[in-house]
Amino acid sequence: MVKNRLIVALDLYDVERALGLIHEIGDNIYGAKVNWPLIMSEGIGVIRKLSKETKVICDLKLADIPNTVRLITEKAREQGGFGIITHSFTGSDSLSAVVRSAGPMKVFSVVAMSHAGSSEFITPSMDSLIDISMDAGVSGFIAPGNNYEVLRHIRKRAGKLTILSPGVGAQGGDPSLAIRNGADFIIVGRSIYNSENPSNTVRQINNSLKGVF
Amino acid sequence: MVKNRLIVALDLYDVERALGLIHEIGDNIYGAKVNWPLIMSEGIGVIRKLSKETKVICDLKLADIPNTVRLITEKAREQGGFGIITHSFTGSDSLSAVVRSAGPMKVFSVVAMSHAGSSEFITPSMDSLIDISMDAGVSGFIAPGNNYEVLRHIRKRAGKLTILSPGVGAQGGDPSLAIRNGADFIIVGRSIYNSENPSNTVRQINNSLKGVF
Repeated sequence: MVKNRLIVALDLYDVERALGLIHEIGDNIYGAKVNWPLIMSEGIGVIRKLSKETKVICDLKLADIPNTVRLITEKAREQGGFGIITHSFTGSDSLSAVVRSAGPMKVFSVVAMSHAGSSEFITPSMDSLIDISMDAGVSGFIAPGNNYEVLRHIRKRAGKLTILSPGVGAQGGDPSLAIRNGADFIIVGRSIYNSENPSNTVRQINNSLKGVF
Repeated sequence: MVKNRLIVALDLYDVERALGLIHEIGDNIYGAKVNWPLIMSEGIGVIRKLSKETKVICDLKLADIPNTVRLITEKAREQGGFGIITHSFTGSDSLSAVVRSAGPMKVFSVVAMSHAGSSEFITPSMDSLIDISMDAGVSGFIAPGNNYEVLRHIRKRAGKLTILSPGVGAQGGDPSLAIRNGADFIIVGRSIYNSENPSNTVRQINNSLKGVF
C-alpha cells in the first residue's frame, strides 16, 4: 500500500530552496511536482537533480502538435522524470504521441482544472477528454481538488486509473475531502513551502488523511 | 510597410546552429519562433541571445492557471522576447493574465492548429476562442497555413489583428496561398533549416510572395 498521498508542488524558482525543502519533507511525501517557471529559472537539469531525491512529476501542460510534444516528452524522460502532465484538448494524436514517447514515465492527462476559466471550454468537454485519454492509454488524470462534484464524476469514470488533485490548500480544497471524493494523491504547494515549519505542515496534512484511505 | 512576411521556426536543439542560421538569413526574415525543445536544451537565455539578432516569438503554448501563465510570461519578457504564443482554450482569466503580464510583448492566441487532432476540440470552439481572445486584448492569432478555409474564416473575424500561420512548407501549406487566404506572416521551419542552402530557400519564398501583399 502507498504510504503517502501527498505530492508537493514546487512552485519555487530556486533549485537550492527546492532541494532544501525536499531534504526536509522528502520522507513524508509521495513526490514533487515541477512546473515551467522552475525549469525556466534553473534549466531542465533541475528534473534530474530533484529526481535523485524524490519522484518528480513534470507539470509541463503539453499542448502542441504531435511532433513537438514528442520532443518535449523525450527531454523530460532523459532527465529521469517519474511522470509527465499533458493536456488532452489538443486531441487524440498529440495525446498518443506523449504516451508513446513517455517510456517508463507515467502520463497524467488534464481533463479538468482548478481555475474559473476552465469552465468555459475544458469542463464542458470533460467526458470526451476522459474518453480520448483512456483510449490513448494514460496512467491517470489531473482533477481539481477544490471541486468535489467534478472530482467525483472523474473518479466514477477513471476506474483503476490514478487521480492527482491540485487546488488543495491555498486554492481552497481540503486534503481529506479531496481524497474522500476520489483523489488518489493531493498536490499541495503554497501551504507547505510558505509554512514556517514545512515538516509540521506535512505531518498535519498526513495526520488528517489517516483512516481516509 | 513590413518588408518581410517570413518567420523562421527554430525547431533546432542547438543554440549555435540556431544563431548561425539567423546570421545567414536574418536580413531576409521578419523574425524567429522559438519553442520549448530549444529552451529545454539551451536554457531560457536562448531567448535573449537570439533577441539580439532578430525578433523572437516565444512559442510557449501557455495553457495553465492564471498565476502560472503570469510567471512564465514574465520570464519570457525578462529575456527580451518580442512576442509570446498562448492557448485560449484554458479560458478568459488565463488569457487575460498573459496579456496583462506581457508588457511590450505581443500576445498571439492559438484559435486553430495545423494537426489532425485539433479538429476534435479546438476547431469546434474556434469562434468562441476568437471572441475571448479579442476581449482579452491580444495582438493577433495563430491560424493554420495549411488549412485555407479555416484561415479565411479567422481573417474575416480578426479585423486588423495580426495572423501568424505555421504549417507552411513541410506541413503542406503554400507560402503565397497562405498569405492570399489571410495570413500576415508565414512561419516556416524544416524547409529552411533542413535546406542545403537556407539563404536561397528564403529568397525563393520571399520571391514567391512578391506582389501578393
